[in-house]
Amino acid sequence: MNISEIQFAHRFDGITGSAIREIFKLIAQPNMISFAGGNPSPAALPDEKVAELAAQVLRDKGKVLLQYGATEGYAPFVESLKQYAEAAVGCPLPAVLPVTGSTQAMDLLCKALIDPGDTVLVENPSFLGNLQCMKFYQANLVPVESDENGLLLDKLEEAMAKHHPKLLYVIPTFQNPTGKTLAAERRRPIAELAAKYGVVVAEDDPYRDLRYSGTPAPSIKSFDKEGWVAFLGSFSKIISPGLRVGYIAGDAAIVRKCTLGKQSTDVHTANLNQAIVDQFLRQGLLPEHIRRICGDYRLQRDAMLEELASFPAGTSYTRPDGGLFIWVTLPEGLDAKQLLEKAIERHVAFVPGTHFYANGGHENTLRLNFSNSTLEQIHTGMAALRQVIEASL
Amino acid sequence: MNISEIQFAHRFDGITGSAIREIFKLIAQPNMISFAGGNPSPAALPDEKVAELAAQVLRDKGKVLLQYGATEGYAPFVESLKQYAEAAVGCPLPAVLPVTGSTQAMDLLCKALIDPGDTVLVENPSFLGNLQCMKFYQANLVPVESDENGLLLDKLEEAMAKHHPKLLYVIPTFQNPTGKTLAAERRRPIAELAAKYGVVVAEDDPYRDLRYSGTPAPSIKSFDKEGWVAFLGSFSKIISPGLRVGYIAGDAAIVRKCTLGKQSTDVHTANLNQAIVDQFLRQGLLPEHIRRICGDYRLQRDAMLEELASFPAGTSYTRPDGGLFIWVTLPEGLDAKQLLEKAIERHVAFVPGTHFYANGGHENTLRLNFSNSTLEQIHTGMAALRQVIEASL
Repeated sequence: MNISEIQFAHRFDGITGSAIREIFKLIAQPNMISFAGGNPSPAALPDEKVAELAAQVLRDKGKVLLQYGATEGYAPFVESLKQYAEAAVGCPLPAVLPVTGSTQAMDLLCKALIDPGDTVLVENPSFLGNLQCMKFYQANLVPVESDENGLLLDKLEEAMAKHHPKLLYVIPTFQNPTGKTLAAERRRPIAELAAKYGVVVAEDDPYRDLRYSGTPAPSIKSFDKEGWVAFLGSFSKIISPGLRVGYIAGDAAIVRKCTLGKQSTDVHTANLNQAIVDQFLRQGLLPEHIRRICGDYRLQRDAMLEELASFPAGTSYTRPDGGLFIWVTLPEGLDAKQLLEKAIERHVAFVPGTHFYANGGHENTLRLNFSNSTLEQIHTGMAALRQVIEASL
Repeated sequence: MNISEIQFAHRFDGITGSAIREIFKLIAQPNMISFAGGNPSPAALPDEKVAELAAQVLRDKGKVLLQYGATEGYAPFVESLKQYAEAAVGCPLPAVLPVTGSTQAMDLLCKALIDPGDTVLVENPSFLGNLQCMKFYQANLVPVESDENGLLLDKLEEAMAKHHPKLLYVIPTFQNPTGKTLAAERRRPIAELAAKYGVVVAEDDPYRDLRYSGTPAPSIKSFDKEGWVAFLGSFSKIISPGLRVGYIAGDAAIVRKCTLGKQSTDVHTANLNQAIVDQFLRQGLLPEHIRRICGDYRLQRDAMLEELASFPAGTSYTRPDGGLFIWVTLPEGLDAKQLLEKAIERHVAFVPGTHFYANGGHENTLRLNFSNSTLEQIHTGMAALRQVIEASL
């Protein structure tokens, strides 16, 4: 039988090649100013420190780190991580599991909860990568409306009552792609709605520490009395995405199911990588490192906002207090996908907003990343982008 | 709603806590001689070399390694890995994907192929971890009979014709748990049967390089004309399991589906870990390292076989040419689970064989690992085990 007759699993039926991946192919050329990715700035990646810590942990614990580890995590890291996560989340955490980047946290949570056809409530727009993850579990994605302060509580309760979802997926702080933050006063009600309707909340909060202005809001998890909120954390944006270390924290039964699932997925997260992040935490290196990153990112955000102020009338955009992204809504009738083609000719790239909507549409929106460009690139690139938009009006 | 009312996904219905995990809890005490695990010897873990290579790659490419990488793998490693894998497998490989340990290769292959209820043919007994992985995909596991030379071709064809499986899972070299090797003359027919019936073969070959005697057999993949054989490789047994680096290689469409699946699982395997293994390959360090490991493991295997020779009449066991395991069949009527309790009292542990059978049974079998014990421990532990068995006759 010819291999072309192979039958792949039905979970691939709804999976198309990532549109963003196609964009990255188009823009992989010299002199491109890319506002498209979600990468940390090269300057924010602590390569010298990681080299030092890697040498240290391999010298002190080399045989242990190179041997098989426990699925539950490298014991010293589980200890330091629990302490760190409880401070970050602002409440005791019955169980914490180190994972291979927080994408794996989402994957394991879906593995624990989602049967084909189960409903997941999602923000609209939301993070493309995790939408795809849920699609692989053949979830029924139901978008819930937001305003500038995040999810609308009445719409959320309506959707919970109507659809009996297994899961609500929410990025509460400096959301990807919009940069919006869920208002503090909506967080307790979301934890209460989750318990009322028996819906697990995946609180995905990788940008939490990247705050440049405004006041931190308590986590949804901190209002969770019953255990329905699972907190997904990541060291990708504050130490390194290439190391692939994140975590999931919350109710012991949920984390136990994720641990069983992880055993058959990658056995355990690489010990060396856990040990490096462990040293960041134990040596207290993170606060100063984050302070330095935030200082740079604040200037980059401000430069991009400054340029947006001179964009054509009818353009609106978010003014995020942190994170990596600004969300732009162009005058009605403009199509960000067409603009992207012209922008690439001018050596500037972004991601059309339509890709982040569970059901498409919203062609006049786009996502801009400011963390991975220098101030000069931001000024040059945004001026070119403005001209491309002006020429299309 | 109380969290105890949470409904987990049905894929957990057939999953019980791992019996082996329970054994590991029982034997986690000082002075235990463990023949239970599948761990490399501490002496086989190249901690000083890994420390040196980690320092080198972080110095030379730190910013690249700490940034996001491609799901397809770290480009220099994809190059060196392809060359290495083609030499190991003995044929050109259209596509090679680095993964987070070869358990992930199995997980991604199941994700690509298996819908609930699909049939997978498995050796009987087989590797517990990957049986559990397939159970998570709600596969219907159908055991196929073997003799001392591995899978019986007539039984295999019968099962293919009868069950229309999506996948055949086979560990052809120094199999886990039996230590058996699939006879060279059965390998071409298996590749041909796979193509005849349109069945993907997962050729899981992590022990291939750990040969202490006998002649290497060509891979099943090397006889694969159509692309139905996917080769799963690992650096866990020859460099380090804690680094979590393996690969899947084969037909481009199959590897592409695995790549899409991996994107939503852990985005990419940690760059640092890929770069370390890349240096092992590029600097040509592996042959000498493997030669040294094999020298030690050969002595350990021989010591265990020597002790087995004086086991009670009616005991039979495999005489593997490599790998990590010897498989023991005790006189009928003995129960290895009961013997384990008594053995633990004597500070010796092993894994009862029943756990490796898809449908249980075979209570008089057990698996012994020789790689993770010293010669002295092997002699002492095997003498104690012999006495425990003799006392039970």
